[in-house]
Amino acid sequence: MANHSDSSSCVHKVGFPPRRSLATDFTRGLKETFFADDPLRPYKDQPRSKQLALGLRFLFPALEWGRDYNLSKLKSDIVAGLTIASLCIPQDIGYAKLANMDPQYGLYSSFVPPLVYAAMGSSRDIAIGPVAVVSLLLGALLQNEFDPVTQKEEYRRLAFTATFFAGVTQAALGFLRLGFLIDFLSHAAIVGFMGGAAITIALQQLKGFLGIKKFTKNTDIVSVMRSVWGSVEHGWNWQTMLIGSAFLAFLLAAKYVGKKKQQQQQLFWVPAIAPLISVILATFLVYITRADEHGVQIVKKIEKGINPSSVDQIRFAGSFAAKGFRIGVVAGMVALTEAVAIGRTFAAMKDYQLDGNKEMVALGTMNMLGSMASCYVSTGSFSRSAVNYMAGCQTTVSNVVMSLVVMLTLLVLTPLFQYTPNAILSSIIISAVLGLIDYEAAYLIWKVDRFDFVACMGAFFGVVFMSVEIGLLVAVSISLAKILLQVTRPRTALLGNLPGTMIYRNVEQYPEAIRVPGVLIVRVDSAIYFSNSNYVKERILRWLRDEEEQQNANDLPRVDCLIIDMSPVTDVDTSGIHALKELHKSLQKREVQLGIANPGAVVVEKLRLAEFIELIGQEKLFLTVGEAVIGCAPKVSEDV
Amino acid sequence: MANHSDSSSCVHKVGFPPRRSLATDFTRGLKETFFADDPLRPYKDQPRSKQLALGLRFLFPALEWGRDYNLSKLKSDIVAGLTIASLCIPQDIGYAKLANMDPQYGLYSSFVPPLVYAAMGSSRDIAIGPVAVVSLLLGALLQNEFDPVTQKEEYRRLAFTATFFAGVTQAALGFLRLGFLIDFLSHAAIVGFMGGAAITIALQQLKGFLGIKKFTKNTDIVSVMRSVWGSVEHGWNWQTMLIGSAFLAFLLAAKYVGKKKQQQQQLFWVPAIAPLISVILATFLVYITRADEHGVQIVKKIEKGINPSSVDQIRFAGSFAAKGFRIGVVAGMVALTEAVAIGRTFAAMKDYQLDGNKEMVALGTMNMLGSMASCYVSTGSFSRSAVNYMAGCQTTVSNVVMSLVVMLTLLVLTPLFQYTPNAILSSIIISAVLGLIDYEAAYLIWKVDRFDFVACMGAFFGVVFMSVEIGLLVAVSISLAKILLQVTRPRTALLGNLPGTMIYRNVEQYPEAIRVPGVLIVRVDSAIYFSNSNYVKERILRWLRDEEEQQNANDLPRVDCLIIDMSPVTDVDTSGIHALKELHKSLQKREVQLGIANPGAVVVEKLRLAEFIELIGQEKLFLTVGEAVIGCAPKVSEDV
Repeated sequence: MANHSDSSSCVHKVGFPPRRSLATDFTRGLKETFFADDPLRPYKDQPRSKQLALGLRFLFPALEWGRDYNLSKLKSDIVAGLTIASLCIPQDIGYAKLANMDPQYGLYSSFVPPLVYAAMGSSRDIAIGPVAVVSLLLGALLQNEFDPVTQKEEYRRLAFTATFFAGVTQAALGFLRLGFLIDFLSHAAIVGFMGGAAITIALQQLKGFLGIKKFTKNTDIVSVMRSVWGSVEHGWNWQTMLIGSAFLAFLLAAKYVGKKKQQQQQLFWVPAIAPLISVILATFLVYITRADEHGVQIVKKIEKGINPSSVDQIRFAGSFAAKGFRIGVVAGMVALTEAVAIGRTFAAMKDYQLDGNKEMVALGTMNMLGSMASCYVSTGSFSRSAVNYMAGCQTTVSNVVMSLVVMLTLLVLTPLFQYTPNAILSSIIISAVLGLIDYEAAYLIWKVDRFDFVACMGAFFGVVFMSVEIGLLVAVSISLAKILLQVTRPRTALLGNLPGTMIYRNVEQYPEAIRVPGVLIVRVDSAIYFSNSNYVKERILRWLRDEEEQQNANDLPRVDCLIIDMSPVTDVDTSGIHALKELHKSLQKREVQLGIANPGAVVVEKLRLAEFIELIGQEKLFLTVGEAVIGCAPKVSEDV
Repeated sequence: MANHSDSSSCVHKVGFPPRRSLATDFTRGLKETFFADDPLRPYKDQPRSKQLALGLRFLFPALEWGRDYNLSKLKSDIVAGLTIASLCIPQDIGYAKLANMDPQYGLYSSFVPPLVYAAMGSSRDIAIGPVAVVSLLLGALLQNEFDPVTQKEEYRRLAFTATFFAGVTQAALGFLRLGFLIDFLSHAAIVGFMGGAAITIALQQLKGFLGIKKFTKNTDIVSVMRSVWGSVEHGWNWQTMLIGSAFLAFLLAAKYVGKKKQQQQQLFWVPAIAPLISVILATFLVYITRADEHGVQIVKKIEKGINPSSVDQIRFAGSFAAKGFRIGVVAGMVALTEAVAIGRTFAAMKDYQLDGNKEMVALGTMNMLGSMASCYVSTGSFSRSAVNYMAGCQTTVSNVVMSLVVMLTLLVLTPLFQYTPNAILSSIIISAVLGLIDYEAAYLIWKVDRFDFVACMGAFFGVVFMSVEIGLLVAVSISLAKILLQVTRPRTALLGNLPGTMIYRNVEQYPEAIRVPGVLIVRVDSAIYFSNSNYVKERILRWLRDEEEQQNANDLPRVDCLIIDMSPVTDVDTSGIHALKELHKSLQKREVQLGIANPGAVVVEKLRLAEFIELIGQEKLFLTVGEAVIGCAPKVSEDV
């Protein structure tokens, strides 16, 4: 063993990376930050015309897959499209209510945006349209500004303005390649937020479900429950409750069937078309019994005809636009998070690449154009995308099919919906959003990472007990705090020798590892930055103090060599180097030698530039901890 | 070599740390975050009375060092105290002007706070009193609320209220052990901020220096320069300029002398007493020539007598208190940053421990008490602390000496200052703040870390061209952005084998390292968190794609094994595990095996809890990259 280590310590010194110019360094950093996916690679070494064609195909992926589109794919897409259409029509009408809009606006939002996305989007499985959480969020933010009943005109104008700016935000993030910003909403926070939003949405449905007329505008559980109990005396409408619960039971049963047989993928259509069947049945029932005259609330009127233009309703400047901008940014980001999460999930399942930034441009364009055609913020829907996937969709053509069905509905069928009871829409929404509560994910988070669980619960309770916006704020804050805390208090570990090897490992993880007498080996588990440089220095000195106390107590040889394993230290800044210099000074006063093991390329370069290596001596840098033990404390190595 | 590695791969498996309960885990995390310095250790296993004594000594370190205080120490402290007193008196009068306060308030702030600090503080070298940057910042923030000339009463009341809340903030941070928050202002940002503030302060002095009467209230360079040029036509006062420049030259010369002979530490008193000499000379000159009648502006009047009580001027509730609180938090944090930086610097030089949180409680108490005795925010001064140190101070008694001299001045000497020309105060301030511009630090930052340099320059130009507050905001934002960016785009590296060893290192850093054919070894240089999990996954897949392209081009054996070196991966969360699972899925589709080398204790535990290890198989975990290469691709290992 000794022979082995000697030869290697002679042959290899700690490597200094070749010097790079500032420009190279900077370009590299920028590239990894903004162009991590190297989007320009296909354009390299290509003639102009080819580049143009590639560019067009990049912008409109439809041009790409359109070339080998065939009849069998079309068949699959038509089946998938019809399935999601049957699911989306009743959902759209219900979600519009969450956004405090008239029902037809939900349908409008399922007509234009999917068409735009079909041309520009690159996810093959996503189903576009209004979704529950964004509808709720948008409704909550908008009604802070205008009352949706008494100021209907202004409310709607602000909705379109916000939608426009949501699109602008999304497109800008993608265009500026800032898509990574949405990664700052952690998985745990999303799970909590979605769960909370689902419960909030379900609670909101109690209004339609119980036939309550006076209902709170707040979304928190306390206000809602107060509304519910407060209305007991006025009496809940039993006919409404009967319809609601019967169909909710039916929908949940259908869902259960669909899930049970999921392996065979044969019965996916059962939960998918159950809502439409419920709507048809319930509408027919109400129509023949004239239950609406006995207090069952119905949809009453849906405007017939396709989307009217709303360009003249959008304000592009002034304080009105500023309000719309603020709301649009929040709603746009949340919508983006949902759409990108869905896109990534299904891309991973079918193993194709998805350019997040490209997707954002597509989604943004879609919402900008949508806002001009009376649509409010649309995005990818979790439930409908899953159905789309299971129904065997091949391309975004399924969205086109859905969109055409919605168009036909708008042109021909809307009058039929006027007898649809609100209770059935509530049942459909409740059954849809229950799928957003991901117990299993929450349990896994609890098991794996307690801090993540705090973020998850913070978002959840924030949404349920306060409001959607506050829940979102809590989620983002805790996520950021987690990152900051981690770089503020990095872990450190004492290393010991694994018997019979040159390998040194954390003595807590490997209880068989043996501490080297007279040598203290500390591994620092993080980049040493301003935020932790003081802590790291003090922590290392504390390890040393603890060690010295033990020696005094147990009469062990004194520590005369401290080795810092820098393998996990990925970077260091001026504060970090400053702390290392102070550490070195303290060690000199105590006559303890300092050795550095395995510094990385960036670290070694910076240590050299800051003349820290000159300070401690080039010979104190070692390739491995093993060599450092031999080199730093020669008299010790003989004993090992 | 083969023998060595075989034996080690048989003997040691990847260690699973012993399971810890949630409570242990949580306590440990809290302890490292808030009690990293283990402040309660001395109290362990001690009787009650001893604990009380220790507690008192902890709160009042004077009780600790007081016991072996002797005459020789007292002598040193008196010399040091007199030196800093001579330096602080003219500075105090000038700094009070920066805060838009009457001159005596600067002296008040050098009387009470040093006494409080002397009893409670643990730094032996810091010199307490008003400082330039905090005075400027406080002045700028206060005059946003009230005009210091027309609303003098309210202005002063707000100043004391803000000082009180600055003290509360400081004490609360220390008491809640949140002291690490000030670490978030990076060294680079502080260098830039201080440099910018120094230039801003120097520019402000042009008013007194040139004898300009109408001067802008803004602090940015553009407004100031406009004021300066705008006043040319009214004529600058040549007598004022003459006095100012002559004494500035004298002060700078004295400084140069002090610096040149610094090695001998003999002439440190030259720059230290130069300001007082200048004041005496200039005052005498003005008095005998009656230059004040020729347009030379003088101090005119300093209230005689020691600090009056200001308890009744502080507002503890209401909107006035809210304003004071906002200003106090900002000024308190900046003051804290300066004091702690000074404390740490000198503690490292004399190698004693400094408890940051304890210091904050002392500084906070000092400002709270100060605010009730007509003092505004005091903190440690860079320049005076350095003089204190060089004059050989031993304990905080030097602050007491200084404080007593200031008291005498207030009681007896203030009338003498009425003929002191403002120009000389300006010269003293200019010469003092020039020391805050740290070219060398800025150059080192430029050399070592470009991003840090951006933060430094951002803070600098923010202060110079916008305002002190904006500069501060820029500094904090860029510092935080840096941390976030680092965890968003971690580095990854390809590893190769160092010939003749079992060691694998970054091929860019060690050009002699040889890539193993058919095996791709990627090291991820960061914890895998929600903010980077997608990037890490995509980046690894991009390495693989690049590699496959090269193989196709060069007819090399295909990659059938991907090894991730997890040594630097200090942590992983649910998003990270999710990304690893997706990566595993993608690799399975490509028929590439996945091996994990050297996962740390936390990571391996979380991977197990999330059943990722079951997914890839226990045998795919390896202790080192070398063993992973052998274990993961058996047929390759024979060739190596």
